[in-house]
Amino acid sequence: MEKAFTITAQDSHSSARKGKINTPHGTIETPAFVPVASQGTVKGLAHDQLKKLGAQLILVNSYHLYLRPGIKTIAKFGGIHSFISWEKPILSDSGGFQVYSLSPLVKVRKKGVEFTSHLDGTKIVLSPEDIIDIQKNIGSDIIMTLDYFLPFPASEEKTKEAVELTTHWAQRCKRHFLENESSQLLWSISQGGIFWQQRKKSIEDLMEIDFDGYALGGLGIGEPKSQFMEIVEKASTLLPRDKPRYLMGIGYIQDILEAVSRGIDLFDCVLPTRNARNGTLFTSQGRIVIKNKKYENDPSPLDEGCSCYTCQNFSRAYLRHLYERGEISSAILNTIHNLYFYLDIFRKIRQAIQSNSYQQFICSIIDKKEED
Amino acid sequence: MEKAFTITAQDSHSSARKGKINTPHGTIETPAFVPVASQGTVKGLAHDQLKKLGAQLILVNSYHLYLRPGIKTIAKFGGIHSFISWEKPILSDSGGFQVYSLSPLVKVRKKGVEFTSHLDGTKIVLSPEDIIDIQKNIGSDIIMTLDYFLPFPASEEKTKEAVELTTHWAQRCKRHFLENESSQLLWSISQGGIFWQQRKKSIEDLMEIDFDGYALGGLGIGEPKSQFMEIVEKASTLLPRDKPRYLMGIGYIQDILEAVSRGIDLFDCVLPTRNARNGTLFTSQGRIVIKNKKYENDPSPLDEGCSCYTCQNFSRAYLRHLYERGEISSAILNTIHNLYFYLDIFRKIRQAIQSNSYQQFICSIIDKKEED
Repeated sequence: MEKAFTITAQDSHSSARKGKINTPHGTIETPAFVPVASQGTVKGLAHDQLKKLGAQLILVNSYHLYLRPGIKTIAKFGGIHSFISWEKPILSDSGGFQVYSLSPLVKVRKKGVEFTSHLDGTKIVLSPEDIIDIQKNIGSDIIMTLDYFLPFPASEEKTKEAVELTTHWAQRCKRHFLENESSQLLWSISQGGIFWQQRKKSIEDLMEIDFDGYALGGLGIGEPKSQFMEIVEKASTLLPRDKPRYLMGIGYIQDILEAVSRGIDLFDCVLPTRNARNGTLFTSQGRIVIKNKKYENDPSPLDEGCSCYTCQNFSRAYLRHLYERGEISSAILNTIHNLYFYLDIFRKIRQAIQSNSYQQFICSIIDKKEED
Repeated sequence: MEKAFTITAQDSHSSARKGKINTPHGTIETPAFVPVASQGTVKGLAHDQLKKLGAQLILVNSYHLYLRPGIKTIAKFGGIHSFISWEKPILSDSGGFQVYSLSPLVKVRKKGVEFTSHLDGTKIVLSPEDIIDIQKNIGSDIIMTLDYFLPFPASEEKTKEAVELTTHWAQRCKRHFLENESSQLLWSISQGGIFWQQRKKSIEDLMEIDFDGYALGGLGIGEPKSQFMEIVEKASTLLPRDKPRYLMGIGYIQDILEAVSRGIDLFDCVLPTRNARNGTLFTSQGRIVIKNKKYENDPSPLDEGCSCYTCQNFSRAYLRHLYERGEISSAILNTIHNLYFYLDIFRKIRQAIQSNSYQQFICSIIDKKEED
């Protein structure tokens, strides 16, 4: 059997590496960006548009899909690929993020997580085993263990508890996962916030259980940038070289570039798609807030150097007009641009690592006007 | 110079005819359906999707574009084609429909129409000459005269007044249009409701002024179907054979089929696009309201026989899921299907006329479950 992860190039001036993740639905070239498709669709796009942009995989949300349309419906279709008609790789998150994002509605117990449904108030108890069963039914290529994601700031004591519970759940996830044969890849998520001792313990625990890939969770939620990057750097050093590393929920280009140089392989974030719908566009010269009056008569594309459908065809003035009118095509064209911008940067990152010029590539980007 | 309209086939069992309208931005094969793009975009689609569906032209709204982004902006781009990056034919309506649809905000005087802006309450006076200037600046291929569109029911006396004013405005539009050379086509709109004497007078007045095409306005707003079709039939008989005939705002397939057999060449309606966004889909077997629970696990496409992207790729269950989640891709995929359904029927209408089998074609459609 082909290895699940192969490193195909290594930058000699940093820990940046280029690789390939083999999944049941094809290969993902890393470093890779995963567009978020929580409900089984990237907001603002039909799949054909997304494929044209070069998306290699998408991320779906187990918790949301569990609630609606429900696992029964997805299972009737033989899994999420068939239900949503997307034949490329799919990663599902475990619902651990919802423990954080829906926290007033969540009780965390050793046996699992108790959600009060944000839809109708129903009490839902999900054990780590349930989380695996849900993702087995979803049939995503990469599935994640349940983790306990704390808000920032959290005390070291509370963080220690979260790490212990995350390890306990990861063990149960792994054990349950192994009960049936599966071609899915099981990745785990470390916690520990920015306390290195806790993060280290979390990663070591997970490495001992052994997973197909290792994610860093609970970062990028308000902690100082320098501490966050220090954790990423130390974590990467600790993690096995031959397994993919995933920095969850991180989307600022600057952070992505720094994390890649510290050896991170995979990223997901709603930033490009959500900002697109809000009319904030990323360009090589910085951000554009398209509703600004100064674009009213501006005939130039969003980004002169960009090859996306939006930039090849439409002016800022027209994009402003569509945004101001609340047209659906505003969301479509903006999402096409922002996702192209992200996916294109990742293509360039991979090329730069391949040609051992990643540092020059970072400088070429950082010299330009940077987003905040 | 090539003729603006050529009849290429004539059904021998009805008045249905196939033709070609030549415009500065290309030829329109008739009978044709014009997707509505009031603000310069068909709601729910980017232009590339619309072109793939086979749209030959679009309809933009002079009144809305006049307000926003404003004629200055469009003129700076050298016209609407360049502003919105749509290189195929464009038809602009005159704003006459807004006299009807925004009626509480409108005062009709001989000199023109006084709108209280629905945006900020500003008073806007638009003369027939202004309406021509606006459309000259917009640079659409087919421009329409200003008409006085009454609600239904209206008295015959009021209708007579509306016809007189419509004629007066049409004369002024034509005179003003001729003041500068233009490759645009100027079409007029008759009024008269369902009073044949008034409609006849309106059409005769407009024919005397002489236009490149003739639209029937003020129909399809609640009047009995039989009277409406009688007017269409008589009007077509009265209108010159060698000029295109346009039945404005009519969108039910049944009505379209009957109007084509009475000699109508052009139709526009928001029905397929608006219904798509509301989750009502047209199929060869009748309408589908996609939110219905019965589609929850339905793996079949909207329409087994349909070749559109949506039907070729997605199940009713997934489309229901997207609709229920309020996803933008629901509007996209539904709009693709409904517009394909319409444009495909028009392709078949043209083929049927070409092969002199239009009556059989109508029967083949009407035998199936019909929409209301």
